[in-house]
Amino acid sequence: MDSPKIVTLTSDFGLKDPYVAEMKGVVLSVCPTAIIVDITHEVEKFNVREGAFVLASTAPYYPKGTVHIAVVDPTVGTGRRPIIVETEDSFFVGPDNGVLMLAAEAQHIKQMRHVESRRFMRPHVSNTFHGRDVFAPVAGHLLNGVSLEEFGPQITEVVKPKFVQITRSEESVSGEVLHVDDFGNIITNIPAKVALDFTLDAVMVEMAAQKPFHMKMARAYADVKHNEPVALVGSHSYLEIAVNQGNAAAKFSVKAGDSVFLSKP
Amino acid sequence: MDSPKIVTLTSDFGLKDPYVAEMKGVVLSVCPTAIIVDITHEVEKFNVREGAFVLASTAPYYPKGTVHIAVVDPTVGTGRRPIIVETEDSFFVGPDNGVLMLAAEAQHIKQMRHVESRRFMRPHVSNTFHGRDVFAPVAGHLLNGVSLEEFGPQITEVVKPKFVQITRSEESVSGEVLHVDDFGNIITNIPAKVALDFTLDAVMVEMAAQKPFHMKMARAYADVKHNEPVALVGSHSYLEIAVNQGNAAAKFSVKAGDSVFLSKP
Amino acid sequence: MDSPKIVTLTSDFGLKDPYVAEMKGVVLSVCPTAIIVDITHEVEKFNVREGAFVLASTAPYYPKGTVHIAVVDPTVGTGRRPIIVETEDSFFVGPDNGVLMLAAEAQHIKQMRHVESRRFMRPHVSNTFHGRDVFAPVAGHLLNGVSLEEFGPQITEVVKPKFVQITRSEESVSGEVLHVDDFGNIITNIPAKVALDFTLDAVMVEMAAQKPFHMKMARAYADVKHNEPVALVGSHSYLEIAVNQGNAAAKFSVKAGDSVFLSKP
Repeated sequence: MDSPKIVTLTSDFGLKDPYVAEMKGVVLSVCPTAIIVDITHEVEKFNVREGAFVLASTAPYYPKGTVHIAVVDPTVGTGRRPIIVETEDSFFVGPDNGVLMLAAEAQHIKQMRHVESRRFMRPHVSNTFHGRDVFAPVAGHLLNGVSLEEFGPQITEVVKPKFVQITRSEESVSGEVLHVDDFGNIITNIPAKVALDFTLDAVMVEMAAQKPFHMKMARAYADVKHNEPVALVGSHSYLEIAVNQGNAAAKFSVKAGDSVFLSKP
Repeated sequence: MDSPKIVTLTSDFGLKDPYVAEMKGVVLSVCPTAIIVDITHEVEKFNVREGAFVLASTAPYYPKGTVHIAVVDPTVGTGRRPIIVETEDSFFVGPDNGVLMLAAEAQHIKQMRHVESRRFMRPHVSNTFHGRDVFAPVAGHLLNGVSLEEFGPQITEVVKPKFVQITRSEESVSGEVLHVDDFGNIITNIPAKVALDFTLDAVMVEMAAQKPFHMKMARAYADVKHNEPVALVGSHSYLEIAVNQGNAAAKFSVKAGDSVFLSKP
Repeated sequence: MDSPKIVTLTSDFGLKDPYVAEMKGVVLSVCPTAIIVDITHEVEKFNVREGAFVLASTAPYYPKGTVHIAVVDPTVGTGRRPIIVETEDSFFVGPDNGVLMLAAEAQHIKQMRHVESRRFMRPHVSNTFHGRDVFAPVAGHLLNGVSLEEFGPQITEVVKPKFVQITRSEESVSGEVLHVDDFGNIITNIPAKVALDFTLDAVMVEMAAQKPFHMKMARAYADVKHNEPVALVGSHSYLEIAVNQGNAAAKFSVKAGDSVFLSKP
């Protein structure tokens, strides 16, 4: 049997409109054996950084050869380029605005292409919906084995998403909130190994306009009492601030992009 | 390889309940090789016109032979008929209340059937959920190649959804709002070619109780400034009122069914 | 052709985060021919009973051999065991907290296993996300035909969800609300045959803090007038309180777990 032809979709389209299903119809029309998997369509509207984070979190779990489409595309229909990034593991298809690059850079990038050939787009390309008219058919043709050079010229410079760099001293580390998940867990950009260097059983955490807050460090949510806050290394190997069976983001009024500051108690 | 057996689902069931997954289980029990694609399950409850619009928007992008199930069915369990509509391109399965017909009439209708044979329904048909007990198994049997005449007698009269006709003069055109999408874009029933006849770079738009509003006509959302309103031809070839990276429906307090009036400035 | 390899997913993860898609990537990495179907990811956070209800409602509609994963897991990362339950019809994979057992007990249970073998888990098992690191790969290996004894030792005692027993007399029956669906329909734990024993065309219903309410019994929602309340046997063969084209849970301020009392008028 051939290896499965998996394509994932990430967007800010939501699920009430026909948009996502139109993209799926186009993929299946080009490659009838495609296996289509939704990553999410509930990226905050126009939030390219959040789309980049969600795609980068998910892509490592997919089989070699998977094609990932991401469409968070506030400047659709203007000059921004449609691109393909080929890595050792996957193909990424979407706009050249950074949404693909956090995921792609975590793998070994082999080549990047500016999609120019109209042969691999729908006959009529609208100015408002390149997800359906450009990215979906391009992904279908990639699954069908069309080689990269046919889509357009190689490129070397692309837009990359900028996240706040973490800053650390012996006593503290500062970073930012990457994402607030549906449980209200606050996922920071502080990597596990930096957080674990503290080797403390408690930390002071300061977030956005909040006063510093004393918090236990633990291994699992349920290591603290019901409704108690806890700092731990989450499933993505970043420091996460949570409340056991509660909503940390609501409790601390925190959102993506806010600053986070950790220090010894 | 056989051609793929694609079935799409459109409903107002939402995603928190077991209903959609029960339908999928029934489809897979009848036709284990079915490829099931959700169009949306977030049609406004009981809003047959919106379901009809979403299905009609999406169906043209699917491969020949696709079976489309739509279940927005406020009168389930009463006398309304379950029907199949076969067109040149697809099969449509659902209640005879108009939800299928906007999509079906856009393709060439070959025949319509009243589904009567209990052989293709689940053994026990509930009075509240024909999606699972009638439409899902009927779709599975269609995918398996059961011929149309086996399901029930041919019919010629079915219920059709009524949308406001557009009215135009040299100076103006009036229509209605078909759908407000998740971005807040206002999709009207004014076709691209009527809108483009104006060949203006700006229009006056009057919506519902709003005062007339002067608006640029453009090609892409990002052709106007951030938060500025814009009239353009959307991806479905209808006139759309949007706000660049903002929510037009919220700004203008507009909802599906509201009237729209365009005139020269 | 081999029988299809179907795996369903039930969780409280929501759809905005990468979690569900990470699980799907892991399943497809282990078993590339898996057919993945979402039951729902919108179980109320940490509500094991609601997860159990939704899974038990849906599982009977799936083909023999289906693997059902359910992850509503408030005590992830603590001592609670990962388990597999094999029944005559299906396999159930998830935490030993009751979420699987309402569905499993409705089928004939053949054996239960405590998953201990690290061979069938991801190399690194996080303390916060066993859905991805344990249950998804275990399900993939089950689909690949790994036999039950390889996963870990047989067990006989597991946690079971407790629902209120119904109490009936000749004149009345009391129970509880199992689930409020997205339409606002109130699904009780009173089985069809108990409800139908009343053989009345009307009942008095008392819910939570509400005063007793006189209500018609009917066959279909549309058997009563628009916005009129109705008691009927729903599609899951339980007594359901609805409002024709309205929201009964909002009208009566009722939620899952509330008590319900039915009597003759």
